[in-house]
Amino acid sequence: VRLRELGEFGLIARIERMARRVSGAAVALGIGDDAALLRLRPGEQLALTTDAFVEGVHFRFRDEPALRIGRRALTANLSDLAAMGARPLGFTLALAAPASLEVRAALALVRGALREGAAHGCPLVGGNVTGARETSLTIAALGGVRAGGALLRSGARPGDRLLVTGCLGAAALDRLRAERRGGRLRHRPQARVAAGLALGSLRGAGACIDVSDGLLSDLRHLLEASRVGAELDVAALPRPRGFAAACRPLRLDPDRLALTGGEDYELLFTVRAAAPAAPVLSRRLGVPVAEIGRITTRRGGLRLLGAPSGSLRLPGGWRHFGVR
Amino acid sequence: VRLRELGEFGLIARIERMARRVSGAAVALGIGDDAALLRLRPGEQLALTTDAFVEGVHFRFRDEPALRIGRRALTANLSDLAAMGARPLGFTLALAAPASLEVRAALALVRGALREGAAHGCPLVGGNVTGARETSLTIAALGGVRAGGALLRSGARPGDRLLVTGCLGAAALDRLRAERRGGRLRHRPQARVAAGLALGSLRGAGACIDVSDGLLSDLRHLLEASRVGAELDVAALPRPRGFAAACRPLRLDPDRLALTGGEDYELLFTVRAAAPAAPVLSRRLGVPVAEIGRITTRRGGLRLLGAPSGSLRLPGGWRHFGVR
Repeated sequence: VRLRELGEFGLIARIERMARRVSGAAVALGIGDDAALLRLRPGEQLALTTDAFVEGVHFRFRDEPALRIGRRALTANLSDLAAMGARPLGFTLALAAPASLEVRAALALVRGALREGAAHGCPLVGGNVTGARETSLTIAALGGVRAGGALLRSGARPGDRLLVTGCLGAAALDRLRAERRGGRLRHRPQARVAAGLALGSLRGAGACIDVSDGLLSDLRHLLEASRVGAELDVAALPRPRGFAAACRPLRLDPDRLALTGGEDYELLFTVRAAAPAAPVLSRRLGVPVAEIGRITTRRGGLRLLGAPSGSLRLPGGWRHFGVR
Repeated sequence: VRLRELGEFGLIARIERMARRVSGAAVALGIGDDAALLRLRPGEQLALTTDAFVEGVHFRFRDEPALRIGRRALTANLSDLAAMGARPLGFTLALAAPASLEVRAALALVRGALREGAAHGCPLVGGNVTGARETSLTIAALGGVRAGGALLRSGARPGDRLLVTGCLGAAALDRLRAERRGGRLRHRPQARVAAGLALGSLRGAGACIDVSDGLLSDLRHLLEASRVGAELDVAALPRPRGFAAACRPLRLDPDRLALTGGEDYELLFTVRAAAPAAPVLSRRLGVPVAEIGRITTRRGGLRLLGAPSGSLRLPGGWRHFGVR
């Protein structure tokens, strides 16, 4: 059955029924009125972010199940909330699709987002359905964060230690393997929501950003926002088990993949020098945490330590930050 | 200059610069971090809505200036907030566009939304830019509303009076005239933000919905949500000056246009029988208000009074509500 047979209102009714199964403590009024109504806790501010997933740009139906696409779309938004130290409250989903799209595929996109939301207590609270030539999902996610307690990109200071959760490069390796060897995508990134919340209440937390475009690219955003430089220890970047061995047959440089591969959705953050050591932080945040460098003054720019020279072709926008 | 020459980050930088000129009292942190941060007033809940505008479906660049498209996209969202009685706090904008789109057109889309936002104290607080085969704008808008004071679709009771702000059919007439006679769109709808706020604090207010799909269609949503019926006086529907005369050469039925034409963005609402008369409501809301019918029990269904029988071909989804 295709969307043109089910119709707009039929699709909306199906989505509403699915969405009703996930509830959220913050929701005063969910889907079905002109807008959703949500409550904040006293003293909380609101964190709001949006991200779009477009067919042919961010996904292709033949590469992965529609359910996974929907999951990823919400993950990108939840990851932004996590990087602010916000607790997710709810999300809206705008679905654009051609009338020829299978209803099953459209519903699987939504279901994927719903499941990912359910795992983080983040219900669907509203949305929009429209015809379009290509399929896309645009999500806006809302979070609550203690006033003054948000983790900002601008919170780093010279002397801070630089850390990252989990490991880097897995999503990029999975994508390159699928492209070159065929087969579907397997890696399933997770937004570090609980870790972000824990980091938000940590004394000595500095700046935070989520790694969505690749470590170097997102580190650059953090350094620019904080007006600082950094030394990054490339050998210290955490990678998945067996990463180098998996890169070899594909002739991929593991350093480069860990530095520039996107969609890791890990948290890249700084803490003051006197903050607890990485193993303690790891216990507090509930995820592995690796110390990968330190923050310097802006004049220091970004220095990569231990990078085999010439092995890294950095993205073009990079240079104005003064890489040496 | 086209988007492929300016690039993603170039476009974002231009948008950020434009957006900075519009500020909002609720914004604790605007564009540039992982998420925006907004404040609510004590005792307020959050209203959240989203709407998408897709090229070829909701707009065509040859029909109207890009600035107007951007305005309309935000108007649709602000109108949803108005229908909840919410004060606008800020919005996010996800722009999808082909690399071949003129930078000027892309920026004009955003500028249109920014100008409309500025008129209602609603700044751009975040967004997303992505490539796509067709251009689209997906906006999510946030409002604050006194807890328990939101105007719901479900708030109507038998005995309520049914009213509408402004006049109906102007947008539909403008669109049909442009289609048949050529020329560009001229009508400029306004979201009834101030009227919605005033209605939200009115004693005796009942249900409210904004007229975006056409009066009949949206009235049906209101009646379903409130589980009531209504009598609608077709002759009482407010129309623009000279409406019948403008319809005649195009062989359009003015009644039908007022009943089913979309994009009016007026507020359709009910008040208890004892609430002030329409002229008093009009002064309170700051816009013309017309009384167009009354709410009955659900068994009464929807009755159109004074409609020339057979002159109205109602939309298909309509019948299950029991029109007589």
